[in-house]
Amino acid sequence: MQFASRLDNVETSAIRELFKLLGKPGIISFAGGFPDSAMFDVEGLKEASQKALTEEAGGALQYGATEGYEPLRTQLSAFMKTKGVDVESNGLIVTTGSQQALDLLGKTMISPGDKVIVEGPTFLATIQCFRLYGAQLISAPIDANGVKTDELEKLIAEHKPKLVYLIPTFGNPSGATLSLERRKKVLELAVKYQTLIVEDDPYGDLYFGEAPPPSIMALSKDVSGSRELLAHCGSLSKVLSPGLRIGWMIAPPELLAKATMCKQFSDAHTSTFAQATAAQYLKSGRMPRTLAHVREVYGQRAQAMGAALKRELGDAVSFTQPNGGLFFWARLTGANGKLADANELAKRAIEKLVAFVPGAPFFAEKPDVATLRLSFATADVAKIEEGVKRLGQAL
Amino acid sequence: MQFASRLDNVETSAIRELFKLLGKPGIISFAGGFPDSAMFDVEGLKEASQKALTEEAGGALQYGATEGYEPLRTQLSAFMKTKGVDVESNGLIVTTGSQQALDLLGKTMISPGDKVIVEGPTFLATIQCFRLYGAQLISAPIDANGVKTDELEKLIAEHKPKLVYLIPTFGNPSGATLSLERRKKVLELAVKYQTLIVEDDPYGDLYFGEAPPPSIMALSKDVSGSRELLAHCGSLSKVLSPGLRIGWMIAPPELLAKATMCKQFSDAHTSTFAQATAAQYLKSGRMPRTLAHVREVYGQRAQAMGAALKRELGDAVSFTQPNGGLFFWARLTGANGKLADANELAKRAIEKLVAFVPGAPFFAEKPDVATLRLSFATADVAKIEEGVKRLGQAL
Repeated sequence: MQFASRLDNVETSAIRELFKLLGKPGIISFAGGFPDSAMFDVEGLKEASQKALTEEAGGALQYGATEGYEPLRTQLSAFMKTKGVDVESNGLIVTTGSQQALDLLGKTMISPGDKVIVEGPTFLATIQCFRLYGAQLISAPIDANGVKTDELEKLIAEHKPKLVYLIPTFGNPSGATLSLERRKKVLELAVKYQTLIVEDDPYGDLYFGEAPPPSIMALSKDVSGSRELLAHCGSLSKVLSPGLRIGWMIAPPELLAKATMCKQFSDAHTSTFAQATAAQYLKSGRMPRTLAHVREVYGQRAQAMGAALKRELGDAVSFTQPNGGLFFWARLTGANGKLADANELAKRAIEKLVAFVPGAPFFAEKPDVATLRLSFATADVAKIEEGVKRLGQAL
Repeated sequence: MQFASRLDNVETSAIRELFKLLGKPGIISFAGGFPDSAMFDVEGLKEASQKALTEEAGGALQYGATEGYEPLRTQLSAFMKTKGVDVESNGLIVTTGSQQALDLLGKTMISPGDKVIVEGPTFLATIQCFRLYGAQLISAPIDANGVKTDELEKLIAEHKPKLVYLIPTFGNPSGATLSLERRKKVLELAVKYQTLIVEDDPYGDLYFGEAPPPSIMALSKDVSGSRELLAHCGSLSKVLSPGLRIGWMIAPPELLAKATMCKQFSDAHTSTFAQATAAQYLKSGRMPRTLAHVREVYGQRAQAMGAALKRELGDAVSFTQPNGGLFFWARLTGANGKLADANELAKRAIEKLVAFVPGAPFFAEKPDVATLRLSFATADVAKIEEGVKRLGQAL
């Protein structure tokens, strides 16, 4: 069978292969990119789904508008307003997880050969998603304060990209958060070079201490002309439930209309059953308590992982303690002749019954094989301590 | 903003514009392509969703496998077996409605410029979906027994298409059902020309009297080598609920693996919440009763519409009485100087407070402006009779 030529640009990820090993009994996994099932507000979602099927069964079970189920768009508009983003319900579309927002951006914007700038490292599924549409990806370097905007400007000037894709808050895999100053700089670059900026923000609500800086979308009101060059992707997956597959995208009207047309032929619309359930949940007023709960639990786990890494691995790794999100991004320093290849460490770690994801696949260009990603979301504090101890032994 | 070049191949459908007029008070609509909300088994789905969130909340709310939630794949495999298709759970993937199965087929198979044969007329969203991937569509003519296989063979031989897309049972918009003899011929053509056949089957369960012939997929066991050249798309949308967005695709392993990879970057997976609910529903054993109910009600409506069309429009229209599905496909004959342009009739009909969809947009090539599609699904018998009377007046 002869497949479409666009498939030549992607491969099944190395990470997927690793995940097959995670079934090993007794393994402690820091490999996943998902929230802890124990955090789900099952009772709240039960009530919400029953209410949806009692009060609005017709809407919840019938075909719906491609743009999204109106009661959910209204709730999401209100939710975004609490985060400083002024958006009406018709200024956003509901997507089947924020993964679909990325897919629709690819379908709508990227012609084969178009250049797209991403952070190095960035979310693996974004790399593959955009490559399927023929994008040529260019990596902009980051540090603990997110993408280096001076380097980003050079790359924009040189490559004239179709869009710049950033995860500015608690990035995956980097855990890094773009500073307020750099956020403003990104907005200025958008206007100066008339370049579309995509802000992917699935983790922004998941902060442990102080709230992070406002989203780039929220800050756009301070930079004239920038809002028309911004798309913002949100998601309920990390804070409420990934299984609902509820994401959304805020974008300029013309882009939103084209993305909606593409969505019509992608899946017609996102499950109205899931949308009505999410709308009832948001309306119920339980979200603030749920957010407080996940922030507290993940915060403790992040604390425990940071302390354990220092204790067990010492100067063999360097990392910045994340203030939110799900991930530690670490780098093997090779100090004292220790291993500096994360792929090799991943193999040894599996033997010691602990798993993580090597960092190299997260780079669209110039992979750094010394890097690794550790999720602290799904193991409790005791398991985190035991797992990091095993990691130290593997090293 | 400069959008991707693939968007040049499609336009927002004329039908979408028509749908904006349907809000007019007092209108009777035969325009929709959706089932009647009053048919939904709300109680059964309430129970199923509660059971899913009680017995398997972790699975129903967490990220899931891209291929589909295993309990649902198991149920769908059993469901297909009752319809004569021998498929294991790993021989199918769950899709976000069968629209997504079409999208994944486009993404996986179609390179820009590839030729695809469809029926003339065919499902509008298939035309647009495949065009977005750069397909050049070729129309194969149909009659009351579905696609004319002798003409189809000529087109396959001439164009060597990437795939042939058919809705063999109660087609949309045609209502036509491919005869048993022609089904076998299609399978022989697949093998003879080594051409992928896509069987889209959202309506096959919705028959009013005798069951239709077995699906092409079910018949493939009689034609050696044909199964490896067949993809079959199924859906719960027309018989249970479109809002769940549960479809599935059966295909050869290599195609299924590539489509799964594409799905990973399209929406990661279909809502596990909706999948677990659908699995519980199928497991509950209520499906046969639900099917019996929808068959009976839609059967009565189809009967009423056929009789009313004869009574009110006489020889001004020709049509074949459908034995299942949701649609009448009719042709204005122009007899006795009556109108033969369905676009013009649609405008006059709206004035008389009745709506239908003109047939021309359903043709990928050579539109027949005398054709129209009438759905009998959402109006009850009294409204159908009144609506067709208005249609007669408009004519």
